Amino acid sequence: MNLRKEFAISPTRNEDFPEWYQQVVSAADLAENSEVRGCMIIKPWGYALWERIQKELDQRIKATGHKNVYFPLFIPLEYLQREAEHVEGFAKECAVVTHHRLEKGPDGKLHPASPLAEPLVIRPTSETIIGAAFSRWIQSYRDLPLLINQWANVVRWEMRPRLFLRTTEFLWQEGHTAHATREEAKEEALFILKLYEEFMRAYLALPVITGEKPESERFPGADNTFTLEALVQDRKAVQVGTSHFLGQNFSKANNIRFLDSQGKMEFAWTSSWGVSTRLIGTLIMAHGDDNGLVLPPTVSPIQVVILPLFKKEEEKTKVLDVVNFLAEEIKKLSFAAEPIRVEIDKREIGGGVKSWEWIKKGVPLRIEIGSQEVSSGLITLKRRDKGVKEKEQLPAHVFLEKLPQLLSEIQEAIYSRAENFLKQNTRLIDTKEEFYEFFASKDSKGNELSGGFAYAHWDGSRETEEKLKEDLKITIRCIPWDPQNTPGICPFSGRPSKGRVLFAKAY
Amino acid sequence: MNLRKEFAISPTRNEDFPEWYQQVVSAADLAENSEVRGCMIIKPWGYALWERIQKELDQRIKATGHKNVYFPLFIPLEYLQREAEHVEGFAKECAVVTHHRLEKGPDGKLHPASPLAEPLVIRPTSETIIGAAFSRWIQSYRDLPLLINQWANVVRWEMRPRLFLRTTEFLWQEGHTAHATREEAKEEALFILKLYEEFMRAYLALPVITGEKPESERFPGADNTFTLEALVQDRKAVQVGTSHFLGQNFSKANNIRFLDSQGKMEFAWTSSWGVSTRLIGTLIMAHGDDNGLVLPPTVSPIQVVILPLFKKEEEKTKVLDVVNFLAEEIKKLSFAAEPIRVEIDKREIGGGVKSWEWIKKGVPLRIEIGSQEVSSGLITLKRRDKGVKEKEQLPAHVFLEKLPQLLSEIQEAIYSRAENFLKQNTRLIDTKEEFYEFFASKDSKGNELSGGFAYAHWDGSRETEEKLKEDLKITIRCIPWDPQNTPGICPFSGRPSKGRVLFAKAY
Repeated sequence: MNLRKEFAISPTRNEDFPEWYQQVVSAADLAENSEVRGCMIIKPWGYALWERIQKELDQRIKATGHKNVYFPLFIPLEYLQREAEHVEGFAKECAVVTHHRLEKGPDGKLHPASPLAEPLVIRPTSETIIGAAFSRWIQSYRDLPLLINQWANVVRWEMRPRLFLRTTEFLWQEGHTAHATREEAKEEALFILKLYEEFMRAYLALPVITGEKPESERFPGADNTFTLEALVQDRKAVQVGTSHFLGQNFSKANNIRFLDSQGKMEFAWTSSWGVSTRLIGTLIMAHGDDNGLVLPPTVSPIQVVILPLFKKEEEKTKVLDVVNFLAEEIKKLSFAAEPIRVEIDKREIGGGVKSWEWIKKGVPLRIEIGSQEVSSGLITLKRRDKGVKEKEQLPAHVFLEKLPQLLSEIQEAIYSRAENFLKQNTRLIDTKEEFYEFFASKDSKGNELSGGFAYAHWDGSRETEEKLKEDLKITIRCIPWDPQNTPGICPFSGRPSKGRVLFAKAY
Repeated sequence: MNLRKEFAISPTRNEDFPEWYQQVVSAADLAENSEVRGCMIIKPWGYALWERIQKELDQRIKATGHKNVYFPLFIPLEYLQREAEHVEGFAKECAVVTHHRLEKGPDGKLHPASPLAEPLVIRPTSETIIGAAFSRWIQSYRDLPLLINQWANVVRWEMRPRLFLRTTEFLWQEGHTAHATREEAKEEALFILKLYEEFMRAYLALPVITGEKPESERFPGADNTFTLEALVQDRKAVQVGTSHFLGQNFSKANNIRFLDSQGKMEFAWTSSWGVSTRLIGTLIMAHGDDNGLVLPPTVSPIQVVILPLFKKEEEKTKVLDVVNFLAEEIKKLSFAAEPIRVEIDKREIGGGVKSWEWIKKGVPLRIEIGSQEVSSGLITLKRRDKGVKEKEQLPAHVFLEKLPQLLSEIQEAIYSRAENFLKQNTRLIDTKEEFYEFFASKDSKGNELSGGFAYAHWDGSRETEEKLKEDLKITIRCIPWDPQNTPGICPFSGRPSKGRVLFAKAY
């Protein structure tokens, strides 16, 4: 029996990446579409991933002095209009509540009743309603900085939804801060960008490129938008987080003023920043393989799964005794400052099916224990990051001794693979021809490839940006801060360039 | 200076309980009203309380085999109509989304645009949308029991909102389960009731009476609704949690069927249960005093606050050295299986103001350390549950040794006080006269009192219920399971009664 063919994800990543993605989501039982267009149901394994992300990121955000709060789901229509660019950016995708009751009509069906005097918008983001509160809470420079964060659901009406990556309702955290000076507010936005980057590298094994968005891609109402860009396995970029320096735009719109230390009234400077359930989509596309999800041990809800194997009833007790003992020993060990998370899968169904379930769910380590292992004192170990077939046999005590180190090795291996992929698919390009070839190339079967990340000079004009978008479906992902960013000539217009920027196709 | 008069909550509980409640919420900086009627902003101290509640309850729910998920905010109108009683119960308070875009009108203002083909309801609770998923997920008895839970925001349009107790949007957890048999589903509903009760007693120091709701107070669509009822200091009841046995009502409405072990298709049996941010309102009203909030140590975000006191700059270093050392030592100690949560308030503002802030926030223990304490090696200790003035002096090492025990004592003292209050204000009443006097009595100033909990016989009729509601503004809180529940005569109608039920005025 060729297990691989029977159980692996079909199609493979190379055959059809978007379909592979859907299949991995479904095979790992992460989420599914609901009947409400664009709204997903996050299932236990998917939600457990979100809880791990929340817990770790929440800790990091709190450790830097931010406090959690909760603001209303509803925003008065009038608030949204206060900042001109902001409303322009979000008006097209706002769900609007217009009634607060249902009534049976003559057709026997329910219809909206009791219209609201003023319609309410479901938050697409909370700058405006939080700004209104800030204007009440902030009186003097002593109230600053004000550093808050909330974990919430937001709604942006989505025309082309895709599970986790782009959904009408999504879960996120949104931080909102107010400061006495421009410098402090900008520093905060950059500080959080760094915090996100470290979190993504260390916890999600996700290398990212950071930089500033060009004006065309800025958050509506921001002076600067800083971004984190990941590259996933079909060589497209995913914007995995943003942090905005909002200048005084929202404080002027909401009248957030304070008495400074010299007794002068000043407008505050604000920032906002967020990451969302999109991180889960990125994790899948960055680390998954043709057998399903691959999870870094840090974020995996279960790090070690033990599969007891027995054919005859009389083997069962012996095997389960060893398995239970081993699980208890594993729980006593720590990885990344937490007890190792282990589960025993005792369901009595064929071993292959069970094993494949955990492969598809991406659990880092599988351990098989049957009567052979019991009598030899060896355990059979399978690393998810090494594919399906590779296995290792180790005496139980050696395994226990090695386990924390082994999880670290898996974590590093997953990160390294993603980092190598990023490096191998990042090019520094200085001619138009090479650039067009990079983004327009096809594979042997004629499928369009996405190229990857390309650093190229840009004259800074919207015109060049638009032309490239039209020709190659690419956008400027960010203006990076790395040493390659030196002045030159834009290969598209021949005009001067302040430095190379990062181009890619993107989700 | 009489600190008490200057800083305590005004009015006192006896003077005006509803206003005292508002003042405590505001003085402890827990929450405030937003501009959207009925929707509150939960501020850091209030949200930290919710996070403590979430963490503890989530752990208990997960430990009993339930898994967390997340379902969409939006429910198709058609779903709601599937269960007749359910829609009847919720139609009056549903927020309805009818448009998914905003457009500038000729008046320059934004107006709802792009009407939805089918309006969407914002979940008032999720039985219907979760039921639709259950009908997909459940095929065979092997898929049962299915045990899920979600932490989410829900919306029920509220005409008389009150912070935490009754808000249009509120946060809660809702558990939803499906089972193969009636017995199992009912057992689950009762099991969760017990879980809630233990959580409330142990973690919130909140004694509650449990029982079943009469038909008139049942959850719309349930066969049985079980409830937990607390008694707060104005002698009114608060329904702090409910657990519903839903029979096959929702499985028939949503076609949740499974193949049983004999190969027969059957409808599943379901349950649902929830507690909300209302718990915070109950905590305030159950434990608060005329100086503000009083928090049980288990749920308090900070358990010990240290206030360094120094008048001259040269005292500062010495005092802070001791304070920092003490905080580090405290962090090494545990209470209720977690490290003790300590904070140093280093702000340089008058000691009285600082101290009162923490009194109003309800922190269980305040420690003052000034140069006198530094030189004597004693620390000054103030227990929040003992009012404002009482203090104790202890050598630092004795304090550290005693601290976990001290927090336990505070926890027990708060629980005992609430339990005594409950006992003192619960009466077994067998005559109509006494009953009417109990609920219609007034204090010396002529203010109406709420009586408390009264156990009395009831003939089981809706008529008697309605009459008592009209005369005394009371409802049957529950049909309890305690030994007093023996047959007798209804004092209101003279008809036979199956047993005494619990009456009270309620929030």
